[in-house]
Amino acid sequence: MMKNPLDSYSKLQKGFSKDVLNEDNRILIGECVRAALKNLKDRDRIDLRSLVPQKEYFAFSGKKKFSRAVNKALFLESPKEWDDFSDVLGKNQFKGFSIERIIKIIYSAAISFCCYVDIHKEGDQKTPGTFFEYLIGHLFAWRLGVNPTTRLPVLNIDMETTLPTDFVFNLGKDKPKFHLPIKISTRERVIQVWAHQRVLDGVYGTGRFLGTPVILTETKTDQRKKEVIEICLPDQWRIYQMHIAQLKRIYYLDVPVSYNKLNFVFPRLNVKSFGHFFFELNSLMK
Amino acid sequence: MMKNPLDSYSKLQKGFSKDVLNEDNRILIGECVRAALKNLKDRDRIDLRSLVPQKEYFAFSGKKKFSRAVNKALFLESPKEWDDFSDVLGKNQFKGFSIERIIKIIYSAAISFCCYVDIHKEGDQKTPGTFFEYLIGHLFAWRLGVNPTTRLPVLNIDMETTLPTDFVFNLGKDKPKFHLPIKISTRERVIQVWAHQRVLDGVYGTGRFLGTPVILTETKTDQRKKEVIEICLPDQWRIYQMHIAQLKRIYYLDVPVSYNKLNFVFPRLNVKSFGHFFFELNSLMK
Repeated sequence: MMKNPLDSYSKLQKGFSKDVLNEDNRILIGECVRAALKNLKDRDRIDLRSLVPQKEYFAFSGKKKFSRAVNKALFLESPKEWDDFSDVLGKNQFKGFSIERIIKIIYSAAISFCCYVDIHKEGDQKTPGTFFEYLIGHLFAWRLGVNPTTRLPVLNIDMETTLPTDFVFNLGKDKPKFHLPIKISTRERVIQVWAHQRVLDGVYGTGRFLGTPVILTETKTDQRKKEVIEICLPDQWRIYQMHIAQLKRIYYLDVPVSYNKLNFVFPRLNVKSFGHFFFELNSLMK
Repeated sequence: MMKNPLDSYSKLQKGFSKDVLNEDNRILIGECVRAALKNLKDRDRIDLRSLVPQKEYFAFSGKKKFSRAVNKALFLESPKEWDDFSDVLGKNQFKGFSIERIIKIIYSAAISFCCYVDIHKEGDQKTPGTFFEYLIGHLFAWRLGVNPTTRLPVLNIDMETTLPTDFVFNLGKDKPKFHLPIKISTRERVIQVWAHQRVLDGVYGTGRFLGTPVILTETKTDQRKKEVIEICLPDQWRIYQMHIAQLKRIYYLDVPVSYNKLNFVFPRLNVKSFGHFFFELNSLMK
C-alpha cells in the first residue's frame, strides 16, 4: 500500500516542537521523504526553460498546475540516499560523504516533499514551509547536540519580558550561540533576518549570536511560460550587511548564482551550500 | 446607474505613480469612495462581538463571507463628508475641521473601499492594500506639496546603486525628509519598517529621514465566531525602537488600544491618529 507523506507529517507535527533534537524526528522525516519520492516516481516531468546560467530545472506535473522547479543537478530520486545519510548522521561522522552528496540528499528531501504538496494540496504554502523548518531545524539541532528555544528573556531596567525568535541554540558558557532563521525563499522579506540579528546584537551584545540563516532556493517558476528565474537582490544584501547587522553565513540548498558572487566583494557575505555546515562547525565556533 | 468603484480604481492605477501629488487623484479617490459607500448602503450589517475594550465593530454581509470589521465610532456613511474634506484639502486649510472629524472621514474612505472589495472580490488582498497606498500617499504628498520617490541613490566607495524604498519625500535642503511606509496592518512584518528606517539612518545619517508609517488598523476578524480582536505586540515594538531605529511617529486610522499606551512609557513611541498629521506638520519639521 502506498503511504501518504502527509500522514507522517502529521505525526511529526505533534511532537516536533517539544523535542527538536529527538531521533524520532529523523525517522518521521525519512518516512515523509520516502513516501513523497515514491509518489513522484510515477509522475510526468515537464522540462522548464531555465533563465539561470548553468542550471537546468524540471517540474512534476499535477492535475491543473505543475510543481515548483526542481534543480536537475541536485535531485536524487532514490530514497536509499536519505537512509545512508541518516546512518552517518546518527553517528555525526561524515567521513566518506562529500559536501556535494550531502547537499543533494538534503535538497532532494526538501524539494520532494514540497513538490508532493504542490501537486496534492494546491495553494498550500504553509505545509512546505513548516516541513522545511522541521528538516533543517532537526539537522541543525542534531549536529550541535542541543535543543533550540524560540523565546529569549529581555532585561531592560524598566521592562522584563521575552522576545520571540527564530530557533536559537545555546551551546553553553563561553561558546557562541546560533541564530537560525529557516526560509523556503526570501525575496523582499529577507530584511527581517538582518533586523532580527540586529535586535539580538543590541540586546545581548554584538557577536554573541552567530546568524546562520538556511534557505531552500530563490527560484520562481512562471506556470504559463514554463520558465524559471532566480529572484535576487545582491546590492540590497550588501547594504543590509553594512548597515543593519552582520550575518555569519547564509546557507542555501540551491545557492543562487548572483548571491554566490557576494563571497568575493566588500562587504564579505559568506553565502554557501548548507553541506558546508556539517564540516565547518568547529571553525565557525572559534 | 450604479457606478463600480473598481472602474475608478483602474483609472487611478494608470496615472498614480507618475504624479502622486496630482489633484486628479483626489477626484478619482472620491469616486471610488462614493461608489463604494453607495453600494454598501444597501448591504446588511452584521454585529460583531468586540474583544477590544471600548470599541464596537460591525461587518457588511457578502455572499459567502462578510467584510472586514468596521469601527462603529469611526464610520461615516455619508459621501458628502469626503466632499467637504476634499474642499478644505484643496486649500490645505483645516480650520473648522477637528482631528476627530478628519480621522473619521479618512477611515471611512479607506474602510468602505476595502469592504467593497472583500465582498465582491473574495480573497483579493492586493487591491485594498494598493488603494490604501494611493489614499494615504496622495494625502501625504498633497499636504507636503511635493511628489515622493521610491528609489534613492547609494554611494559607497566601491558600489554605486539605488535603494528601493517606501515613499520618501524630499522637502529640500536643510529640511527634514519623510519616510512613509503605508500598511493595512502590520503584525509580525512590522520589523521591516524599523529595518528600512535603520538603512536610511545608516546610509544618509541618523535624523535625516523622519519615519512616519501610516497604518489602517490591527483588527482581526474571526468569520466563524464573529469576533474582533486587535493583534498587537507592544513589548516587541519597544525593543525595536530601542535597538533597531527610532521612528518619529506611528500614525493609525484606528489606533489600537495597547499601542496607545506606548505614548507614556520608555522608550517613547508616538502612536497617534493620522488626523494629527494635518495639524502638527510644522512642529514635526522643527
